[in-house]
Amino acid sequence: MRRAMSFSPNKYKTSFNSMPNKDVLKGDWLPNISVDCVIFGFQENHLKVLLLKFRNNEIWSLPGGFIGKEEDADEAAKRILWQRTGLENIYLQQFHTFGDLKRNIGAIEKHEEINLAMGRSNEDLKWLSHRYITIGYYALVEYSKVKVTLNDVSDDSSWMDVDQIPSLFLDHTEIVKTGLAHLRSSIDTKLAAFNLLPETFTMSELQQVYETILGKELVRTNFQRKMLSLDILERIEKKYSGGAHKAPYLYRLDKKKAEAFLTSAS
Amino acid sequence: MRRAMSFSPNKYKTSFNSMPNKDVLKGDWLPNISVDCVIFGFQENHLKVLLLKFRNNEIWSLPGGFIGKEEDADEAAKRILWQRTGLENIYLQQFHTFGDLKRNIGAIEKHEEINLAMGRSNEDLKWLSHRYITIGYYALVEYSKVKVTLNDVSDDSSWMDVDQIPSLFLDHTEIVKTGLAHLRSSIDTKLAAFNLLPETFTMSELQQVYETILGKELVRTNFQRKMLSLDILERIEKKYSGGAHKAPYLYRLDKKKAEAFLTSAS
Repeated sequence: MRRAMSFSPNKYKTSFNSMPNKDVLKGDWLPNISVDCVIFGFQENHLKVLLLKFRNNEIWSLPGGFIGKEEDADEAAKRILWQRTGLENIYLQQFHTFGDLKRNIGAIEKHEEINLAMGRSNEDLKWLSHRYITIGYYALVEYSKVKVTLNDVSDDSSWMDVDQIPSLFLDHTEIVKTGLAHLRSSIDTKLAAFNLLPETFTMSELQQVYETILGKELVRTNFQRKMLSLDILERIEKKYSGGAHKAPYLYRLDKKKAEAFLTSAS
Repeated sequence: MRRAMSFSPNKYKTSFNSMPNKDVLKGDWLPNISVDCVIFGFQENHLKVLLLKFRNNEIWSLPGGFIGKEEDADEAAKRILWQRTGLENIYLQQFHTFGDLKRNIGAIEKHEEINLAMGRSNEDLKWLSHRYITIGYYALVEYSKVKVTLNDVSDDSSWMDVDQIPSLFLDHTEIVKTGLAHLRSSIDTKLAAFNLLPETFTMSELQQVYETILGKELVRTNFQRKMLSLDILERIEKKYSGGAHKAPYLYRLDKKKAEAFLTSAS
């Protein structure tokens, strides 16, 4: 897709040209528009989503934020991800904009509840009680590299299994589901799954990521044949393992071949 | 895709529950957010896009508009399509939101030029000189059914060949390209192409639509085999043609089978 933010598996991720501007962080925001991020990570064969809990509340939500008046929407999404995870060069994909009126039903009451629990002023509430149309992005991160930083309205975070997410703030449950559907549909054409893995991986680890995203088992021989036929993988020389069993081959993505594949697939 | 607005080829399109609200038409709009529509039609084996020309200017643009403060974003897109084409039940798909700062570079000057040529007041300019993030939708229409109605800032419209579009207003050229890429990528999973055809069609007409959208020739026997294997087409009994040559079979989509296919593909 022309508008995909970047193709950036592993070590050769497109770098962000500029770190978030401090003036933008202080905030002079566009009204009525927000950004919400579905941050996917892969841990112990489970696909996880990073969620934040509102301070002194049991309400969980996606990491999100607003767009500076002098900031690209995509840059806002990158900034929000950097602020929450400490990661700069992550695979990020805009997938859908949520503009239903009903997504804001009950929003003011929710915000009142949250503000009350946090002892915040009505000034904050006034800003938050706008109707928001939110742009959904999903990110794929290496779970082990994330250092979660809470924002000023959160007091806890959690990586929750995508199949076991509780009822979330506003329409965030729907945003997660829609993001997952888009991730699934882009697994073949965008090589999205590789962004969840470290630089080197076994074929079995790769298959587990695919199976977890797709939510179904795949036949090992077929999967391996398909992956090798894409001609994007580099097999790394085996080190002597000393064990009785053959160590599995390690692979990594071949940068140039992967880019050629993506160009031809788009 | 869960968020696809509707699957609505031909006669069994999902109907819009409500016609645009007159109060919304009078306008109390969300600031900073707009909607732009890439309306695709198929005419004489060409894929066309409906464009509007600003009054007393040679600047062409996509049909677009704003979102009412009490209106869903999707409803706004439907309303704008209805206002410009007279069509209610058309296939409509949100595909990308354009939020770069640079899309507004020169926008005020462009609007000044347009307003000046139309003899409009600075009040209008003030509203239009906001920074806009625009939600892109594409629509697939039966070309012959469209009755174009100009808006109050346009004095001409044209169905332009998608390969021969002039430089458009702001980033509208990029919006068309991105919309086309999304249409191409959804041709198999969403049966999008059928929305460009009348209720009944020959296999050859169907192939022409596919070839035009994809921008490449397809092998006739393979295409026919693939289409029949989807098990979504109903072959209509031939009428006696009276001619020396065999008349080609006519087909139409089988509603239930098409829906089952879409459910399994999403």
